Amino acid sequence: MTFERENVRRLAGYVPGEQPARAVAKLNTNENPFPPSDAVLAALKEVDGEMLRRYPDPTAWAFRTEAARLHGLTPDHIIATNGGDELLRLALTTFLPPGSPLGLADPSYSLYPVLAAIHGSPKSAVSLNADWWVPADTARRWNKAGAKVAMLVNPHAPSGRLASPGELAEVARVFKGVLVVDEAYVDFVDPVIAHDTIRLVREFDNVLLLRSMSKGYSLAGLRLGYGIGSPGLVAPMLSKTKDSYNVDAVAQKVGEAALRHQHTAAASWAFVREERLRLTAELTRRGFLCAPSQANFLLATVPGPSGTAERLLWRLAGEGIFVRWFDQDRLRNNLRISIGTKNENNALLAALDRLIRQEP
Amino acid sequence: MTFERENVRRLAGYVPGEQPARAVAKLNTNENPFPPSDAVLAALKEVDGEMLRRYPDPTAWAFRTEAARLHGLTPDHIIATNGGDELLRLALTTFLPPGSPLGLADPSYSLYPVLAAIHGSPKSAVSLNADWWVPADTARRWNKAGAKVAMLVNPHAPSGRLASPGELAEVARVFKGVLVVDEAYVDFVDPVIAHDTIRLVREFDNVLLLRSMSKGYSLAGLRLGYGIGSPGLVAPMLSKTKDSYNVDAVAQKVGEAALRHQHTAAASWAFVREERLRLTAELTRRGFLCAPSQANFLLATVPGPSGTAERLLWRLAGEGIFVRWFDQDRLRNNLRISIGTKNENNALLAALDRLIRQEP
Repeated sequence: MTFERENVRRLAGYVPGEQPARAVAKLNTNENPFPPSDAVLAALKEVDGEMLRRYPDPTAWAFRTEAARLHGLTPDHIIATNGGDELLRLALTTFLPPGSPLGLADPSYSLYPVLAAIHGSPKSAVSLNADWWVPADTARRWNKAGAKVAMLVNPHAPSGRLASPGELAEVARVFKGVLVVDEAYVDFVDPVIAHDTIRLVREFDNVLLLRSMSKGYSLAGLRLGYGIGSPGLVAPMLSKTKDSYNVDAVAQKVGEAALRHQHTAAASWAFVREERLRLTAELTRRGFLCAPSQANFLLATVPGPSGTAERLLWRLAGEGIFVRWFDQDRLRNNLRISIGTKNENNALLAALDRLIRQEP
Repeated sequence: MTFERENVRRLAGYVPGEQPARAVAKLNTNENPFPPSDAVLAALKEVDGEMLRRYPDPTAWAFRTEAARLHGLTPDHIIATNGGDELLRLALTTFLPPGSPLGLADPSYSLYPVLAAIHGSPKSAVSLNADWWVPADTARRWNKAGAKVAMLVNPHAPSGRLASPGELAEVARVFKGVLVVDEAYVDFVDPVIAHDTIRLVREFDNVLLLRSMSKGYSLAGLRLGYGIGSPGLVAPMLSKTKDSYNVDAVAQKVGEAALRHQHTAAASWAFVREERLRLTAELTRRGFLCAPSQANFLLATVPGPSGTAERLLWRLAGEGIFVRWFDQDRLRNNLRISIGTKNENNALLAALDRLIRQEP
């Protein structure tokens, strides 16, 4: 006998990228290639038995204060979450009545439609244009469908395309629900662009930015993210719908140190930007087409007949090089490749040279 | 403008007990009085930058294997969660269609009805008998109401009353939905009772046990709990409805060490049992009525006219002694007192002696 709800019974769960025990190059889940800084590890070392024994601060006040300072806001604009994924779920729990559609763009982070299905909501998905940005009437289509929440990832996953604050504002202005802008990869945006979305939070009471400590701050193992939004958006999640003690004491302490001591993390962002350029050039030279990326990964169209990308995925895995392939429309001829260390990226390029030569 | 769902707008959030920065005796949130063992702290020290940088194992395999070994089951009977609270929420997400009622007993852990309200479900609550156990027709009443999930906490909170596996089996056998037995306090049950609920999991495919690492293992700050149930109950939560990486790498590693090296934790359980007896005797001598407790807290009826318990709560807080008071029917004349260290318990008793003398 099954006790599952009908919508749960029907759904296929989200499948995270593999976490292989050994890899020559693990370029499949967009982790930062470098460990967190010594200052962050020192904060971890300070965790003692008393911190473990006691319940953590339920609202993560110190962490939120540090995040607020960083963004020039007050802490009531910030909510700390158990990874960015929790913020996505909380946005649905708090703002989307089950049955009402979730606004999406397609293709995008494949977790979004899974969250909608768990929630018991259909999706209202618009197809992205060829440049991976939404059509001009997107917000109107979401409104017409009755979507109370919509999610855009920016820089876009899996292409890495960056929408400007102006492009996002056009959507936020027209959309009548809560617009979640998933900025999991925003730390890797080139600073010369001066990309600043905090002004959207000041201007629009329906914009909720998602930040992740997983990639930019090398803390994927810790599960910590945060939301930035108007106090009216943040308050119900903070005081009503999140689990009472959603973020543990270790993550609060270590995450606060990571935000405060950004120097090492910022150096990793600069490294990723340089390697992103180099890898783009090297892949292009080998016949791949790389979408211009502001994230810590590249979406590379694999040269050759259909089926080549998937075959290449498995051949690379056979050599201990893990990248990501999506069995989705518009993505089947592509591989998503995280920017790794120089050695990892070189190992990938060397393997590609060997494998492409073998291709029939 | 508010974007909250109607059910969220109406609900008052759960209010966790205070986490004061300084306290003479913090006896308000049922933490273990002692820190975790050296073996557990050693596991924490082994966490390195690489573990933080990488995503954790999404299914917490090593932790689940250790928990399964402990209970004589296979890992497919176990799900690790971000504190026990997450398991409670997942049970609703997975098995309870919004709008269908959640079966409850009243009074009980005050988070349950909050979770139901967030989920958009009413509650079907039966009033506990004078001995804090459910009436004989409870399961039938839940069935009649159409409840697909019900929650009982055992040992009961806030009384500490322990229901036997036989009593629980009577409910599980008749109830047509998923029976969550919240065993957050079960580590403190006297071993002479030989209380064993794992047999319920073997016998009934609708029983889901909740275990917490917060109290028994002194890891409240870490957020780690787990569920034990038939593989059919566990699988949809594990592969579909939980957040992809719900338990962080630190909690997985430290929690595994805590399960493996139980000696120090078990010594704390024995200490709590001894102090529970002593505190019961001392409170009884002072005119309090203590319900027989198998948990790490006592529910003590305060002598004196109505209003005395709440007044005593605040007077104790004024002396740096924090206990819990519930503004609920049948509980207003009571204080819930966590078992602390000898010093903390003595500080409480001394303060009571002073304060009761002052009472008009």
